[in-house]
Amino acid sequence: MPNVKLILEYDGSNFHGWQHQPGLRTVQGELQRVLEMVLRVRLHELIAAGRTDAGVHAVAQVVNFHMPEAPDLCLLKRSVNAIFRGEIAVTSAELASENFHATLDACGKEYQYTVVNREAPPTLERHTTWHIRAPLDLQRMQKEAALLVGTHDFKSFQGPKSTAKTTVRRVLSSGFRCDPPYLIFSIIGEGFIKQMVRNIMGTLVAFGRGRMRCSSILEIIEAHDRRAAGPTAPPQGLCLKRVFYDRAELQAALNARE
Amino acid sequence: MPNVKLILEYDGSNFHGWQHQPGLRTVQGELQRVLEMVLRVRLHELIAAGRTDAGVHAVAQVVNFHMPEAPDLCLLKRSVNAIFRGEIAVTSAELASENFHATLDACGKEYQYTVVNREAPPTLERHTTWHIRAPLDLQRMQKEAALLVGTHDFKSFQGPKSTAKTTVRRVLSSGFRCDPPYLIFSIIGEGFIKQMVRNIMGTLVAFGRGRMRCSSILEIIEAHDRRAAGPTAPPQGLCLKRVFYDRAELQAALNARE
Repeated sequence: MPNVKLILEYDGSNFHGWQHQPGLRTVQGELQRVLEMVLRVRLHELIAAGRTDAGVHAVAQVVNFHMPEAPDLCLLKRSVNAIFRGEIAVTSAELASENFHATLDACGKEYQYTVVNREAPPTLERHTTWHIRAPLDLQRMQKEAALLVGTHDFKSFQGPKSTAKTTVRRVLSSGFRCDPPYLIFSIIGEGFIKQMVRNIMGTLVAFGRGRMRCSSILEIIEAHDRRAAGPTAPPQGLCLKRVFYDRAELQAALNARE
Repeated sequence: MPNVKLILEYDGSNFHGWQHQPGLRTVQGELQRVLEMVLRVRLHELIAAGRTDAGVHAVAQVVNFHMPEAPDLCLLKRSVNAIFRGEIAVTSAELASENFHATLDACGKEYQYTVVNREAPPTLERHTTWHIRAPLDLQRMQKEAALLVGTHDFKSFQGPKSTAKTTVRRVLSSGFRCDPPYLIFSIIGEGFIKQMVRNIMGTLVAFGRGRMRCSSILEIIEAHDRRAAGPTAPPQGLCLKRVFYDRAELQAALNARE
């Protein structure tokens, strides 16, 4: 059966996250409804690389689904983009190999979290950033962020109602870029557990404000206890930036940030 | 009388422009209402550096107003920022010399216009960019943009209902920066007439699409006729970036882009 691979951008503001939930407006639910309408077919399930939370954005979410016949990909793109009027946009649509799986085949994902660190609230970026008025110790945050690299049990950063069988994940790159008033955290990992990036971000900001009592983020990891970590950062600052399916591409991205 | 100088950021999306209009929600109208409430005083008039059109944004609009007594500037900032919840933000509030005039004392202004040039519509930037699907001849656009520098009669780029006594203006810098899919036009001038930047942008894009019959933008300038120019670019791509009150600072900004 033809297997369609889409790359999506979306503004998560008015969605209850990626995953279908009865009675709620979700990206998966809306996209499936529109695809079924445009393609005049019933779809089994849309598979996504990352199940973004309510309010979280994406600039390169990857999705796949199977169809009885190969669709007109140009028509698909144009129709979906016209219907969603910029809330969701398909930036690429192609046929993938029949066994391509957007979630299982991903060898890495990059998330980005943006903070506006100044007294005045952000205006044009208020739906895509976290506003922090307090001064932040960036050097400390950078140091703690770097310690996340490696294979760790991230149980202390696990969100509620997570169904993950294991909380061990491998982080490949983690660090801040500062472009005042913006402070941009980027993390690349082989995989992430539910709310992991937002919980890490909330913890790093707590370190930056001098509000964490423990000596380092490694102590929090070792606690295996959500209560050891800081608060969850709000969703709107988070964006799924990139999904890697090719180890060489992933390695090139990692090399580029060293 | 104490003269208060504010620097403002605003998301112009839900405002009918800067200038007060009875029955319509404008930045001037809303800001004056809130300032009068917070400062418990009747204000004569808020004076702005640039009267932005409906839907146009600002990241450094400069405003001044006189008060019978000097206000608590911290309280002013905090109150206004809390009330507007990110639609308008005061990034700076200070006392200026008594005769400072936000409009008349400006020696230069910078506007920026952002285009997203790709097939898929923008998502997170859909309220701050102009989406152009068609391929653009950037080299041609860059060449025409550069020809605007100098003192010209910009009557061909004048918006309707403009009350300007003269349409002669001096442009100091004009050019594009390309960061795919973004195409960012920046123009610095001593002053601008109503809708001048949007009409210039619409014309430059028409050149980029090969849709202008005339040989160059100078021919359009020489026509002194709005019909010679291209269409008006939509407002949401435009942003008032900076206002200069100091010739040395203006010169430094111009030198930095050479």
